[in-house]
Amino acid sequence: MTRNIYDDPEFFAGYSRLPRSVEGLDAAAEWPMMQTMLPPMRGRRVVDLGCGFGWFCRWARVQGAASVLGIDVSTNMLARATADTTDPDITYRQADLDGLELPASQFDVAYTSLTLHYLADLDGLLATVRRALAPGGVLVVSVEHPVFTAPTAAEWIRDPDGRTVWPLDGYLREGTRVTEWLAPGVVKHHRTIDTYVNALLRHGFVLTHLHEWGPTAEQVRDHPEWEVERDRPPFLLFAGRVGR
Amino acid sequence: MTRNIYDDPEFFAGYSRLPRSVEGLDAAAEWPMMQTMLPPMRGRRVVDLGCGFGWFCRWARVQGAASVLGIDVSTNMLARATADTTDPDITYRQADLDGLELPASQFDVAYTSLTLHYLADLDGLLATVRRALAPGGVLVVSVEHPVFTAPTAAEWIRDPDGRTVWPLDGYLREGTRVTEWLAPGVVKHHRTIDTYVNALLRHGFVLTHLHEWGPTAEQVRDHPEWEVERDRPPFLLFAGRVGR
Repeated sequence: MTRNIYDDPEFFAGYSRLPRSVEGLDAAAEWPMMQTMLPPMRGRRVVDLGCGFGWFCRWARVQGAASVLGIDVSTNMLARATADTTDPDITYRQADLDGLELPASQFDVAYTSLTLHYLADLDGLLATVRRALAPGGVLVVSVEHPVFTAPTAAEWIRDPDGRTVWPLDGYLREGTRVTEWLAPGVVKHHRTIDTYVNALLRHGFVLTHLHEWGPTAEQVRDHPEWEVERDRPPFLLFAGRVGR
Repeated sequence: MTRNIYDDPEFFAGYSRLPRSVEGLDAAAEWPMMQTMLPPMRGRRVVDLGCGFGWFCRWARVQGAASVLGIDVSTNMLARATADTTDPDITYRQADLDGLELPASQFDVAYTSLTLHYLADLDGLLATVRRALAPGGVLVVSVEHPVFTAPTAAEWIRDPDGRTVWPLDGYLREGTRVTEWLAPGVVKHHRTIDTYVNALLRHGFVLTHLHEWGPTAEQVRDHPEWEVERDRPPFLLFAGRVGR
């Protein structure tokens, strides 16, 4: 069972105030790149694993998806997601992704944004998703980048010459990291790119995309405070297609 | 034209004294993992891009490769490689990999170990290799890991709590890095995993392997000084198969 930090009142209050929670996908810096990894939505059956407030579910329907199933562990988030739509082709379901069950061959697109690093059992979820995808189905993923999750103390420091550097250690030491983000005691599971990619290949996907996201020059012009993210990418984006 | 650091007398003398130069593949810590990425050599036509002293070329022939072409820019290294074999099915050729030409569909396996990070034109070489591989052919690569090549000052430092950390910066700033390794002024080309993987996919390969190499527990027992490499992987290994 994944600890459900999203139903912690302090965390939920903080999360609800993030730009991406208030303004949706267009306030998520990595969204333009995620879109390039998605197939056309028209007529597709979509599942969003860790759907949160349902922004992606609603976007997929606007783009013509046949149906969207949003799954999240947080009843708080699903309450708002449910209140925010009357679309009968969007369904929300409360479930823990660790131990999730899905019907076989019922989806064309599985999407999961900044969620898998909270999961203890990556292999279990990938096996479930692989079975749930129809032939030609795709899985599109974003997670916190492993260089972001690895360090014992994940805060920028100054090197002896005064340069701002990211104190990388523990990269190959996979496992939990307890951090403070919006609330104390947030537990993440650090995994390497090696682990993510090989899990995908082992479960019968062909890798179609892999991106280490950082802000574009244009984004840095609009948000100068993001420039430091180019020194250490915050997000890893990847996608796979069901192989034969 | 890639600067040929291997024919710098100071660099060559230092390189010649490395365990992997004296004892061969078994002294290369990443070799056991590289072997798991290689197809059986029997009957294959092999090209080694950056063959150095020819250790891999000779190994491939011992394993039954039909023929091996070793290419290197360094006349010093090729002189020793040539002196170290009388095998008529190993051919050595002096050439710069930047601007290399190879005949079409003549090889089953292309191998390149710790070489591509010296190259200015990755795309050019991958296009050449793709054309040179026969259907079903594979490319097996090791390079210095991007977290290793990225930093402005690539030396372990202490964080404010006294922890040994790797001062990551500039990860998404691709381009040259000038370092001191065996000799001053060694020029490397820093590229992200994103760039390596997408170049492979763009040139028509299917990704079959991706490993972020660090020492195993057994290797750390034999070489306790390697433990720190688990904090920041030194090598990235990947392989692709010619797609349809």
